[in-house]
Amino acid sequence: MRGFFEPQSVAVVGVSEAPENLGRRIAMNLQEFDFDGIVYLVGPRGGRAFGRRIYKSVSDIPDQVDLAVILVPARHVPDIIDECGHKGIRRAIIESAGFSELGPEGRQAEQRLLEAARRHGMRFIGPNCIGVINRGNGLAVPFPVLKNVFARGGISIVTQSGGVGLDYLNMLASENLGLARFASIGNKLDVDECDLLEFLVADEQTRIICLYLESISDGRRLMRIARSTDKPILLHKSNTGTLAQEIAQSHTAALSGDDAVVSAALEQVGIARFSTANTLLNFLKVLPLPPLRGKQVAVLSRSGGHAVIAADACEQYGFSLVRFPEDFLRAIEQHFRAQVIRLTNPLDLGDLFDYDVYDRIVERTLGLPQVDGMIFLHTYVSAVEREDSRAFLRRLEEHSFRQGKPVATCVFTDSEEMSLLRRTLPHPVFTTPEDAVRALALLRDYRHQQLPEPRADASGIDLAAIRTIVERCRAEKRPVLLDEGLEILRAAGLPVAAWAVADSAAQAAAAAQEFGSPVALKLIAPEISHKTDVGGVLVGVEGADWVRRGFERLQQAAREAGVRNPPRVLVQRMVSGGTEMIIGAKRDPTFGPTVLAGAGGIFVEVLRDVALKVVPLGDGDLDDMLGRLRVLPLLEGARGRKPRDLEALRECVRQVAELAAACPEIAELDVNPLLVLHQGQGAVAVDARVVLGPAERDEDRFRGAGANSATQV
Amino acid sequence: MRGFFEPQSVAVVGVSEAPENLGRRIAMNLQEFDFDGIVYLVGPRGGRAFGRRIYKSVSDIPDQVDLAVILVPARHVPDIIDECGHKGIRRAIIESAGFSELGPEGRQAEQRLLEAARRHGMRFIGPNCIGVINRGNGLAVPFPVLKNVFARGGISIVTQSGGVGLDYLNMLASENLGLARFASIGNKLDVDECDLLEFLVADEQTRIICLYLESISDGRRLMRIARSTDKPILLHKSNTGTLAQEIAQSHTAALSGDDAVVSAALEQVGIARFSTANTLLNFLKVLPLPPLRGKQVAVLSRSGGHAVIAADACEQYGFSLVRFPEDFLRAIEQHFRAQVIRLTNPLDLGDLFDYDVYDRIVERTLGLPQVDGMIFLHTYVSAVEREDSRAFLRRLEEHSFRQGKPVATCVFTDSEEMSLLRRTLPHPVFTTPEDAVRALALLRDYRHQQLPEPRADASGIDLAAIRTIVERCRAEKRPVLLDEGLEILRAAGLPVAAWAVADSAAQAAAAAQEFGSPVALKLIAPEISHKTDVGGVLVGVEGADWVRRGFERLQQAAREAGVRNPPRVLVQRMVSGGTEMIIGAKRDPTFGPTVLAGAGGIFVEVLRDVALKVVPLGDGDLDDMLGRLRVLPLLEGARGRKPRDLEALRECVRQVAELAAACPEIAELDVNPLLVLHQGQGAVAVDARVVLGPAERDEDRFRGAGANSATQV
Repeated sequence: MRGFFEPQSVAVVGVSEAPENLGRRIAMNLQEFDFDGIVYLVGPRGGRAFGRRIYKSVSDIPDQVDLAVILVPARHVPDIIDECGHKGIRRAIIESAGFSELGPEGRQAEQRLLEAARRHGMRFIGPNCIGVINRGNGLAVPFPVLKNVFARGGISIVTQSGGVGLDYLNMLASENLGLARFASIGNKLDVDECDLLEFLVADEQTRIICLYLESISDGRRLMRIARSTDKPILLHKSNTGTLAQEIAQSHTAALSGDDAVVSAALEQVGIARFSTANTLLNFLKVLPLPPLRGKQVAVLSRSGGHAVIAADACEQYGFSLVRFPEDFLRAIEQHFRAQVIRLTNPLDLGDLFDYDVYDRIVERTLGLPQVDGMIFLHTYVSAVEREDSRAFLRRLEEHSFRQGKPVATCVFTDSEEMSLLRRTLPHPVFTTPEDAVRALALLRDYRHQQLPEPRADASGIDLAAIRTIVERCRAEKRPVLLDEGLEILRAAGLPVAAWAVADSAAQAAAAAQEFGSPVALKLIAPEISHKTDVGGVLVGVEGADWVRRGFERLQQAAREAGVRNPPRVLVQRMVSGGTEMIIGAKRDPTFGPTVLAGAGGIFVEVLRDVALKVVPLGDGDLDDMLGRLRVLPLLEGARGRKPRDLEALRECVRQVAELAAACPEIAELDVNPLLVLHQGQGAVAVDARVVLGPAERDEDRFRGAGANSATQV
Repeated sequence: MRGFFEPQSVAVVGVSEAPENLGRRIAMNLQEFDFDGIVYLVGPRGGRAFGRRIYKSVSDIPDQVDLAVILVPARHVPDIIDECGHKGIRRAIIESAGFSELGPEGRQAEQRLLEAARRHGMRFIGPNCIGVINRGNGLAVPFPVLKNVFARGGISIVTQSGGVGLDYLNMLASENLGLARFASIGNKLDVDECDLLEFLVADEQTRIICLYLESISDGRRLMRIARSTDKPILLHKSNTGTLAQEIAQSHTAALSGDDAVVSAALEQVGIARFSTANTLLNFLKVLPLPPLRGKQVAVLSRSGGHAVIAADACEQYGFSLVRFPEDFLRAIEQHFRAQVIRLTNPLDLGDLFDYDVYDRIVERTLGLPQVDGMIFLHTYVSAVEREDSRAFLRRLEEHSFRQGKPVATCVFTDSEEMSLLRRTLPHPVFTTPEDAVRALALLRDYRHQQLPEPRADASGIDLAAIRTIVERCRAEKRPVLLDEGLEILRAAGLPVAAWAVADSAAQAAAAAQEFGSPVALKLIAPEISHKTDVGGVLVGVEGADWVRRGFERLQQAAREAGVRNPPRVLVQRMVSGGTEMIIGAKRDPTFGPTVLAGAGGIFVEVLRDVALKVVPLGDGDLDDMLGRLRVLPLLEGARGRKPRDLEALRECVRQVAELAAACPEIAELDVNPLLVLHQGQGAVAVDARVVLGPAERDEDRFRGAGANSATQV
């Protein structure tokens, strides 16, 4: 990837003498950013621009060219690529639009383009993008005209949309946040976000990585790269729902996965997902501050109203306000010229107009061991206090770094003063109390760190038994039946309520007698996918007579539902009591196997209380999953209830996760309900639904699943 | 109130020759805003300022004075008020701090101040405020130095915090939003938010009213005023929680009520509650647009990425994207110079750089009858397209008003161009797609309208029976007992599970036999507030023998809990089945009686699924309450369950609401659980908890409850 950012020479292909020509603008940007390499202009009509010759073809360029930037009509691009290949150019940025984002014809054009590049071993970014910027060497090849108003810094951007990328650039400029690298990847036909992410993770200039993506090319690889680094990675994954899909296909031919899986996967590897520019801005402002080690903060304010708003926000975002010790308050009191404020936290500086006193209060407050961080709310009228305020705002940052605690500074003043502050202060400031508090919460909750790669462990799973069932179903081209589903759960090490399969009423009665009553009777029929809908389930059936009549009733129900052959019936021991939970597994097209756990029973849809992870699970993932469930207190014994067997629940979730990792053939699996009994009494699965995916082997579809390959059946 | 905003002459009291004197700044502001009345300066040391004489006392002023603006040390304020009174001044604005916000001494000073004003029949705003601005006549008396950068317009502001008020003023200025009136009310010792709100509702200059409040002085009056007008009222009620209360007391001696009641009450009368400056800004930008009549929108964008983000936001905020008709798309297609965009909604204008075509597309799109509103996302580089863009943005607004449909315009450009746009465009623009969509959602969901004053109806309540119980409990100085609570519910017209009170085991057994088994046995003892905690409830007790033993067990439990006299036992028929709901009533210190309904049972704390209203209920309030409950689909028969008796539930909620309105003596009431049976079978209350308030009559405490006085016992 380095070749895209550090070329010695660049050919801009698609330049003409016409003033509205877009290629000219690329050349202008290279000039504006003072690129420290050599630039060649290329265009079929030749001529000159900016005092340079326009070569009619890249082959006319007398010297070696490291990078070609191409902005010509889409139909010409494959030939240009071919020419570039012959010239020995091995990196290209293709900004032309008109490819797959416009439909089938565009897709064909992309195919030709890809073949041309592969012939020459050429890597390229795009098409349908605005290219890259390297703030370090002045390489700036977007076609929109830019001004080089960017500070040098550690923020790098990868974006699937040029427009959003420009928006981020404007934001950096107006907030005086420093840029390292920028890459717009468009249709990402060759180079994708993972290629660039890998580069930025290793790049010594980059300290924070921001991504805007409408699709994720390889979820598993993204997760692996994220786990490999300590650098914060912030991602706006848009295109979340059905409404957005239409435009996404037209825009960058993005395929949209299941958004809940995306969120879970990103969180699992410490990628911070954001969805508004304001959250991104809060992240970028707060991440360079010293770390926030706890949730005890001090709020200092020149306006009581803003202090109240900040205190509301502190409560909302889970902060507590330190109670200041008496001797501290007495010491502060000595410095006050009059009793015009009350000494509380938030500390309302009210009518105290003395910047030296502010300084001492800030210093002493940050010095308190119980204070983890500070919010300083500074209201001023620039006409009166401009100089004092600006100097004080600089000192605030010094205090923060000297004491190693974050100070989120919020400024309220007129907009001219505000924009001047933004351009001149070495550190960013906030403009609302909520943003300041929210940013501190982001700093508290988000600390990206390297994570070990989790390993699958299928040792507790009888893969041979599962393989037999899968192969049988595939051979017979039919879905997995209820008893087979329960068999799979049992093979995966889950406790399943005792069952037997009966072909006749007599067999059913015998089985029921063996279990002791009551039992549940359930239809087994490949034609019926929702057996309760057709009256195919009877519960609480007691006594041989009733069991026999039940068996017949299910036969009748099957006939009415159009089942031709007399179906078998599952006789299952009823389990009473127990909290109903659901455990599920699903294979996501982008991220591969996932596991889900949550509240079951009739409240499942009302509560929507589930947690999701990509498998295999890493350290702490299982605890994190259960800890997110709102029903957890009920399981733990809230409201005087007996605690439930959480350990058994954990074990079941773990086994379903391992099953999902080990068996790529399983597309979907529901254990619903799993009854979690009183502590020490375990948990019991009473129903299962297993859906197989297509028969072809899955390694190719999940490139990132390498760690599991040993356990794949 | 008009006297505070339209005085012919103003005396600024507290002016000196010292450059840092705050009173001088008030005089400067009056000059900056070009006040069209006469200004007198007053200060004890006399002298001159701004070429005028400083009078040593208001009594030295030779002419009549309509308004005094006072900024002197707190201890002098009562005397100044007295002087002003003698001078015949009937309106004062007291900006001095140092009153109740500093504690008990300050409260005494306030008392003296209040007495002085009352002696002279004087009304005043403050103390501890920054006063008022009338953009119409140039009256501007805040002590912070201001620049008159405010457009004239229809937005009026009432704020309890001067700092937050200044912040709002800065926001109006930088977004070029027009100001009408501004009032900072500080400790609101005399004039409060309701006095000003009443004035602004009648004020012909004011079209939108924004309030910032840390406490609400009279909730019932606030609701009554809000119901009387069509003008939008936007309120930031801060000081929501426990953390904020400490500073609020120190800041404006605010008392904080129950925040959920505040939200419910405001929503009930159509006051839009906001909690961030950004939401306020979105409201102010979008409310002047034509109304949004549905939820079908069109998104037009020059950047595909922003279009995707807007589509995500549309989905999040409940909009649907219109599917454009074929003939419309064909007509649009004719205007395109090349096939560079795909015709979908969102419509990505992509590489189409032609403002005239934009114009025609916008016009035609707004003309489609199925389109209710539009989001236009405009990205441009100011160096290239400045003039075309600015002109187009003006035309966008013309299209919007001509066709009577809102267009939320979002602009992405560099920050200099952005601030210039803000100062020069006649209409506001948004800067993120989320804000544009969110603002349209505010416009769709918020339309303030006059509402009739709801009336209480206690005709179905046996007030005499309730009064008897209340008087007995008060006379015996003891809480309401369980059987009395059930009696009160019955008197209020609620169905209650049959019960009897037993003094002996034999009586209990007889009662149980009469009900038919099983029964519940519950301790009745004034000493025990949570009977389940001491084992004071037995359920499912069957047969005479078991009932007798149960009676004895409860006696034992009572003795162990320290109850001296042998307590009575309530024998109650068990009701099986039924969905557990909770209905409650609470008397709020600010808003008076309220009613609550929600999911009961063990999920009550997990679900937190309740709805709240201030009573008496208005038209539609009852439907709105039940409609908000997430359990409603379960009651209606989701997931194949039998539907429950919703009509019976409604009736019970209505009766509890009327009870709360009719009986000010009841401080708190819980019906928990109310069992809602299958449709047509009604609902049954099985437990009750009633807490009485203090014995004094309540009319004084709830000034706003006038409509109910006829029904108060």
